[in-house]
Amino acid sequence: MTTQTPALAVTKADNPFETVTLQRRDLRDDDIRIDIKFAGICHSDIHTVRQEWGEIQFPITPGHEIAGVVAETASGVTKFKVGDRVGVGCMVDSCGECEMCKNGQEQFCTKPAVFTYNSDNYDGERAQGGYSQQIVVTERFACRIPDGIELDEAAPLLCAGITTYAPLKRWGAGQGRRVGVVGVGGLGHLGVKIAAAMGAEVYGISRTMDKAQDSEKLGATAHLATNDESVFEKYAGTFDVILNTVSADLPMTSYLGLLKPFGALVNVGLPNDDYEVPPRSLIGQSKSLSGSMIGGIAETQEMLDFCAEHGIGATIEVIDAKDIDTAWDKVVAGDVRYRYVIDTATIGA
Amino acid sequence: MTTQTPALAVTKADNPFETVTLQRRDLRDDDIRIDIKFAGICHSDIHTVRQEWGEIQFPITPGHEIAGVVAETASGVTKFKVGDRVGVGCMVDSCGECEMCKNGQEQFCTKPAVFTYNSDNYDGERAQGGYSQQIVVTERFACRIPDGIELDEAAPLLCAGITTYAPLKRWGAGQGRRVGVVGVGGLGHLGVKIAAAMGAEVYGISRTMDKAQDSEKLGATAHLATNDESVFEKYAGTFDVILNTVSADLPMTSYLGLLKPFGALVNVGLPNDDYEVPPRSLIGQSKSLSGSMIGGIAETQEMLDFCAEHGIGATIEVIDAKDIDTAWDKVVAGDVRYRYVIDTATIGA
Repeated sequence: MTTQTPALAVTKADNPFETVTLQRRDLRDDDIRIDIKFAGICHSDIHTVRQEWGEIQFPITPGHEIAGVVAETASGVTKFKVGDRVGVGCMVDSCGECEMCKNGQEQFCTKPAVFTYNSDNYDGERAQGGYSQQIVVTERFACRIPDGIELDEAAPLLCAGITTYAPLKRWGAGQGRRVGVVGVGGLGHLGVKIAAAMGAEVYGISRTMDKAQDSEKLGATAHLATNDESVFEKYAGTFDVILNTVSADLPMTSYLGLLKPFGALVNVGLPNDDYEVPPRSLIGQSKSLSGSMIGGIAETQEMLDFCAEHGIGATIEVIDAKDIDTAWDKVVAGDVRYRYVIDTATIGA
Repeated sequence: MTTQTPALAVTKADNPFETVTLQRRDLRDDDIRIDIKFAGICHSDIHTVRQEWGEIQFPITPGHEIAGVVAETASGVTKFKVGDRVGVGCMVDSCGECEMCKNGQEQFCTKPAVFTYNSDNYDGERAQGGYSQQIVVTERFACRIPDGIELDEAAPLLCAGITTYAPLKRWGAGQGRRVGVVGVGGLGHLGVKIAAAMGAEVYGISRTMDKAQDSEKLGATAHLATNDESVFEKYAGTFDVILNTVSADLPMTSYLGLLKPFGALVNVGLPNDDYEVPPRSLIGQSKSLSGSMIGGIAETQEMLDFCAEHGIGATIEVIDAKDIDTAWDKVVAGDVRYRYVIDTATIGA
């Protein structure tokens, strides 16, 4: 049985959202059908659909921060049963056979991976995302959402959570380490929460002190405002890891200066311009300028379990489907604390 | 007793070398006096003395690849006895108390460290380097040269050896990993030997195939010439670590393209221009652009032990002191395979 499901879609470039009906595929042997309850709004949904990252194919239903409940399982499904709370993130399939897949890094599958939207499934069917009421996905690309997290607060973890968790873990955020999180927004607010839960001494870092109180509520020891340039001197050489979540063009050299020897500046926000980095700022004290893109499925599950254990969900504002266009504009304006989540029951209502 | 020792020095900017007599300090309680047998010529000696890295103070005796034999020990010395084979590298003192010193990373001492030349000792005395017949140094900054390595082949390990060993180890060169070494010269030839001894599959990488045979003799599986631009396509996404030892301005984006996801491009050569790096080339596959500067004393000892165990010494040409100016010009021209080492017995002879 092909599933028909109400969804939000942009059908033509520069158009507002419309309510459409998506056809989800018949369940394959290892598929589950998910009743989507909440879908987070990620800034990359906007970049993609507004074609800021290149031309795309319309119509498109974005959304890769999906939380819901299993509604149906195919005969070969072993991981889930109907009623289970599950999430789907940025990917819905990968080859499963390449070195990257075997290492649990499906996001770098060489085939390559099928992303949740703006991507073709291996059979040619167009993948459409989570701003909808149902999705069909192989059980391998769904993660269990532990009971400790509400579904609405869990949704953004599927992208923003893993995007911050993976580099924080890889670069050693933890006890005795000082971590800076640049940009306290959709990604950064989770970066602060997660780094603090890992045991690190966390500093929120943004242009102004506007979010200083929030930063500390999220778990930061203190907040630094870079419109006061003296912070780059005062805190020079004091950070082990800096996670940069903003997509504005920042002066990498200044932030590298905040690092201790062997420190890493890890970027997850994608700016327009090239980084310009004086060789000495890396070589002089064995530092790294790095990047990170989401994480694999096993690590996403690990992140969800970690968040549940530490009582971490995203800090969200739940919106109705009819408010999607306004919400997008507000995300672009930075006017959200900290993640909009669509109540999918309101789609077509 | 103050030690007087013949040395090579440049006494005025742009002058050739002269033979001078250096005064080495009276032995302090933890000092050893070393009869220097061999001193390697490092390209950074030349950059420094020719003031390519900024103005310096003359006269200067460079040299931080020092191998010799302990000639005298002060009363508090416990690590060495007269006759021991020892080496001194780029540093001769550090505070011993800061976080970096305590972590065995004296090169990043916050006081900061005293370097072997072009640096002041903590008492204000000018440090002078290894192109001489004797040096006095605290035993903490001397390393044991194991019997398995000849002193002349050991000398370059004290800088070039640790400069390549430390990043190769940190970034995981070893069994099952493919490592590229860009530039098969003074640093790079040791990079190839060490990475191969660590168990990695090593590729020498240079502009032409001129050193292809050498590269393989040093332990590389194969050699790549970048004057054939198709190598960047053919080997795209296949390296775990690339150690860049050249100080020419290279296109970082091309070399980042050779890395697998999570790969690291580590620079130890210092070019003039800023690196220009498209954010996607790091973020898209979680890669790193990194730098590395020498290593701490404990790690230098570990490197010497590792080299002895694997039969690794530098590949050298021993020269007489009178040939120093010519040798420097040849180093600049890249006309040495692969390290000049001064027989210090010929100084003033």
